[in-house]
Amino acid sequence: MSKSAVAFEPIMGERVTTGPLPASRKVFQRGELHPNINVSMREIALSEGADPKALRVYDPSGPYTDPNARIDIHQGLPALRRDWILARGDVETYQGREPKPEDDGLKSGEQLNVPIFDRGPLQPLRAKSGKRPTQLNYARAGLITPEMEYISIRENQGREQLLKARSNKGMPRDGESHGALIPPFATPEFVRDEVARGRAIITANINHPESEPMIIGRNFLVKINANIGNSVITSSAAEEVDKMVWAIRWGADTVMDLSTGRHIHTIREWIIRNSPVPIGTVPIYQALEKVDGIAEELTWDVYRDTLIEQCEQGVDYFTVHAGLRLAHVPLTVDRVTGIVSRGGAIMAKWCLAHHKESFLYTHFEDICEIMAAYDVSFSLGDGLRPGSIADANDAAQFAELETLGELRQVADRYNVQVMIEGPGHVPMHKIKENMEKQLEVCHESPFYTLGPLTTDIAPGYDHITSAIGAAMIGWFGTAMLCYVTPKEHLGLPDRDDVKTGVITYKIAAHAADLAKGHPAAQDRDNALSQARFDFRWQDQFNLSLDPETAIDFHDQTLPAEGAKVAHFCSMCGPKFCSMKISQEVRDQARQQNEVTGLTAEEIQTGLDAKSREFRESGSKIYQEIN
Amino acid sequence: MSKSAVAFEPIMGERVTTGPLPASRKVFQRGELHPNINVSMREIALSEGADPKALRVYDPSGPYTDPNARIDIHQGLPALRRDWILARGDVETYQGREPKPEDDGLKSGEQLNVPIFDRGPLQPLRAKSGKRPTQLNYARAGLITPEMEYISIRENQGREQLLKARSNKGMPRDGESHGALIPPFATPEFVRDEVARGRAIITANINHPESEPMIIGRNFLVKINANIGNSVITSSAAEEVDKMVWAIRWGADTVMDLSTGRHIHTIREWIIRNSPVPIGTVPIYQALEKVDGIAEELTWDVYRDTLIEQCEQGVDYFTVHAGLRLAHVPLTVDRVTGIVSRGGAIMAKWCLAHHKESFLYTHFEDICEIMAAYDVSFSLGDGLRPGSIADANDAAQFAELETLGELRQVADRYNVQVMIEGPGHVPMHKIKENMEKQLEVCHESPFYTLGPLTTDIAPGYDHITSAIGAAMIGWFGTAMLCYVTPKEHLGLPDRDDVKTGVITYKIAAHAADLAKGHPAAQDRDNALSQARFDFRWQDQFNLSLDPETAIDFHDQTLPAEGAKVAHFCSMCGPKFCSMKISQEVRDQARQQNEVTGLTAEEIQTGLDAKSREFRESGSKIYQEIN
Repeated sequence: MSKSAVAFEPIMGERVTTGPLPASRKVFQRGELHPNINVSMREIALSEGADPKALRVYDPSGPYTDPNARIDIHQGLPALRRDWILARGDVETYQGREPKPEDDGLKSGEQLNVPIFDRGPLQPLRAKSGKRPTQLNYARAGLITPEMEYISIRENQGREQLLKARSNKGMPRDGESHGALIPPFATPEFVRDEVARGRAIITANINHPESEPMIIGRNFLVKINANIGNSVITSSAAEEVDKMVWAIRWGADTVMDLSTGRHIHTIREWIIRNSPVPIGTVPIYQALEKVDGIAEELTWDVYRDTLIEQCEQGVDYFTVHAGLRLAHVPLTVDRVTGIVSRGGAIMAKWCLAHHKESFLYTHFEDICEIMAAYDVSFSLGDGLRPGSIADANDAAQFAELETLGELRQVADRYNVQVMIEGPGHVPMHKIKENMEKQLEVCHESPFYTLGPLTTDIAPGYDHITSAIGAAMIGWFGTAMLCYVTPKEHLGLPDRDDVKTGVITYKIAAHAADLAKGHPAAQDRDNALSQARFDFRWQDQFNLSLDPETAIDFHDQTLPAEGAKVAHFCSMCGPKFCSMKISQEVRDQARQQNEVTGLTAEEIQTGLDAKSREFRESGSKIYQEIN
Repeated sequence: MSKSAVAFEPIMGERVTTGPLPASRKVFQRGELHPNINVSMREIALSEGADPKALRVYDPSGPYTDPNARIDIHQGLPALRRDWILARGDVETYQGREPKPEDDGLKSGEQLNVPIFDRGPLQPLRAKSGKRPTQLNYARAGLITPEMEYISIRENQGREQLLKARSNKGMPRDGESHGALIPPFATPEFVRDEVARGRAIITANINHPESEPMIIGRNFLVKINANIGNSVITSSAAEEVDKMVWAIRWGADTVMDLSTGRHIHTIREWIIRNSPVPIGTVPIYQALEKVDGIAEELTWDVYRDTLIEQCEQGVDYFTVHAGLRLAHVPLTVDRVTGIVSRGGAIMAKWCLAHHKESFLYTHFEDICEIMAAYDVSFSLGDGLRPGSIADANDAAQFAELETLGELRQVADRYNVQVMIEGPGHVPMHKIKENMEKQLEVCHESPFYTLGPLTTDIAPGYDHITSAIGAAMIGWFGTAMLCYVTPKEHLGLPDRDDVKTGVITYKIAAHAADLAKGHPAAQDRDNALSQARFDFRWQDQFNLSLDPETAIDFHDQTLPAEGAKVAHFCSMCGPKFCSMKISQEVRDQARQQNEVTGLTAEEIQTGLDAKSREFRESGSKIYQEIN
């Protein structure tokens, strides 16, 4: 399904997938408040006669799709944000934590067998004493950061022109926003205000200056996350880095590294240094490796040390399952599938073993202090999310959600940005309640859901069972959708699965944007449908989310190059092509309206003369292609 | 993706795909009112220790999955319903219409180059003078036909036992039905009453006695249709017959033969004689072939002759685009994608060329007379369905829908059963309006929609863009969902595409059943999720919609046979398996509750003694598998 335009070479061969998508080039737009920022977008060129002549689309793929960029994964990406961060004067470098063998899960005497990313002397940034260098803090102080202006330009996708064109055509804005307040344009001030309200987050660790700023909030474009990561059983550093590049090529807005097992630290370093999108992790996974996988042996000290390790590396957001409380565990006893979150299961076991609240809960303010010093955002984990239709929206799930809402208020006091994780497995009729309850108890913090899967009965197709739920909950207000691949419940996703998962979730996110009435969302649908009606096959392919697959499917039936300009396609053949007949019908109907000046009702009364005219002028269905 | 359990051999090699799905066998249940009926279902056996020990599921695959059935496609299937039909005494055989070369699109002198299905002398059935042998007529007369009892048993899937089991567990019925009235059990009388009200149809031509009765209505399980058919460009009879068998193997409830081009008549004969599911067609396609593809040359006589030809063959339902009126055509002029229905485009052209209402509209009562004589059902076609997001819910679409509602009332007078076709391309926020308007103006006739696709931007993935819309509109009340394959807009579906389309639509239909609160829908989810939690891997595979793909995906990461009984899987490995940890947590929580008799709140207050006990009893995450 997914052969790349550019041959894939694994990282150990020094390269990852690069090159533009078909008919696409990088375009850049400068900032006004901050003239030193230069926002990249993807522009898809359309063929002669198309109107508009090109379409700009949101593009998280970074320099990898820019033929002018020099990609060297041993160097990492340029530190785009470094100067912006330093210019604010509230951070300082310091001697970082010394890496330890256990960071990579190595026992004493064991050697690392993946190459080290050489970043030079360890001089990470952190807040100066008494400072909180977070975007939330700046937003509340009324400061529009370069990150905020970058985001405002990025979200607008250069649509000022297109919007003008559309209003000329009298196409009204459409949609049902369910309370979202999406403005015609995302101004820098709007971005600042949404962040200040905690309705949106800019997840951007000061130690990940390579990242291109993006925003997660329900008054912006719906975002998607792709999970990658090795496990004990399989996968290598090489595969994981290229999976990140591959995932963002197709549209992933953030990437979570869910690695467990060995070489976690080193693989993560490769990923972060080469990632233009925010990277999220679940630090408890690495902490558990450090105590040999024995949940009861986890301690605040081990966890704290792991947090600092990852803050210094540049992880942008942490899933923290601090909302799972001891009292919630018995609520899961009669579930069909118990606790299906890995982090949730680990913490539940710890709570029972120690018979007390988890250190994530009791040390929550300490965690806030640490994350504030690096501007790492919370993704407050739903350790009790339902793992089956039977368990959806149950007492355990909602009890934890309420605790997450309380913790959000705590984080807020530390100026740490927060999003809230959501389910899971939920039948369609219970999805809306999830969104409404989250908005209510979590004070409009961005919601970040896994699917939800709308049925349990289709392993192998859970990208689809969950795309249904994801599109719906995205429409209702979820800000970011965590993808599910076809391998969910069965195995680890490979390259094809990652692509299928990303494209499927781009569909869900876009369907949600359309239904919410995002002012720019329908431009791409209109451009593609117009191309379809005009038989501009290449434009139709190029405007699609996956041009390669579209071309490949087309060519399976009609391989000849000439077929791509034919005024019909393989489904119906020339005689039955509804688009072709319809164009003729339209021309005829227009002509009749113009000639006669009659209304539809008048036409209906019957104009035999016009009928004769139509026939006499040679009204064959099959006209030669001009 | 889809390798069959049984090797595929093309029809010209005499065979089609046969054999049961994994762990499945045919079970039969006798009628009570009609002891001569014997309803087949599929029973999936579960492994030792599972509760329930087996699950029965709805099964449209017919004898092809029954190892005891002798399949010979040259003989066709047994005439299951023949005696029931004759016993009613209102039909007679007669000398049927003589096939003509143009039925197969042959010019004079051309030879047929596909084999003929030998059905012996042409002695089709039709109504005796003054009789209307339709299920609607019987229903209104208070007669419970064998077809109706068959359906009642079939819809219940032997769930009397399961439902008892569930109520014991105190699981309440759940769902939001949007006005659907699904009873705990579909009694024969309920089936009759729904048919009498026109809220459901039993589409069963008296000349297709091979079909197993099924029902389409919103108070029953949501059904799916798969389209097959050759076109001028590609495909053969052989492929089409096996596509039908292949589509029903994976769950298609009806199949539409949308062939155009040559050999239409002969291919259709092969399909019908071998089909245990209702077959639908769009007769205007064949009629157009008979006038060399020139829409303006279509006449009532040619169309009428085609209807009779297909009635005699046994087509169960006809798509008739009678709702497209001359006055509607100008409403499509400013659309982005004009008229995208083939039939709609053909009739629009005819209307403009002749400047009068189409013969489908003016001869609608004649059409009713013909269809009543064979019990063929209407699928009133939406010739003006939107072909893009921009055109959704527009004046043209809804004007035609209102006409369809009027025509339904006409058909009703002739005791002809009716369902109504619906869109198309519709963004999520406009889907509900479609269903509500259809219910209102079409007097609760069953709705039968194509998708709808919720965005235009993903050619190559339109099974997914449309599954989102299909699941939603199915939830809102659509009775049958017409599948969309990955090749939609790009090419003709092959075998893999048909399977992907069917499985995707089974997901949508099932998600809809769950959300509507169908009393049996969740049984399969619960059984599969319980298997997942219990690490019964084989049961998880066998209960899934596509066991072959599930096994294949699992084995890609963990091929060893031992891994299928392992208490972990490849995603997390043994250390991080949330299911495994969760089972331990549950056991521990239960034990603590029993020992202490304490509530959750009391546990929360902290029991250090219990903590010690847990640890002292060896609370390792990794316990040996017993």
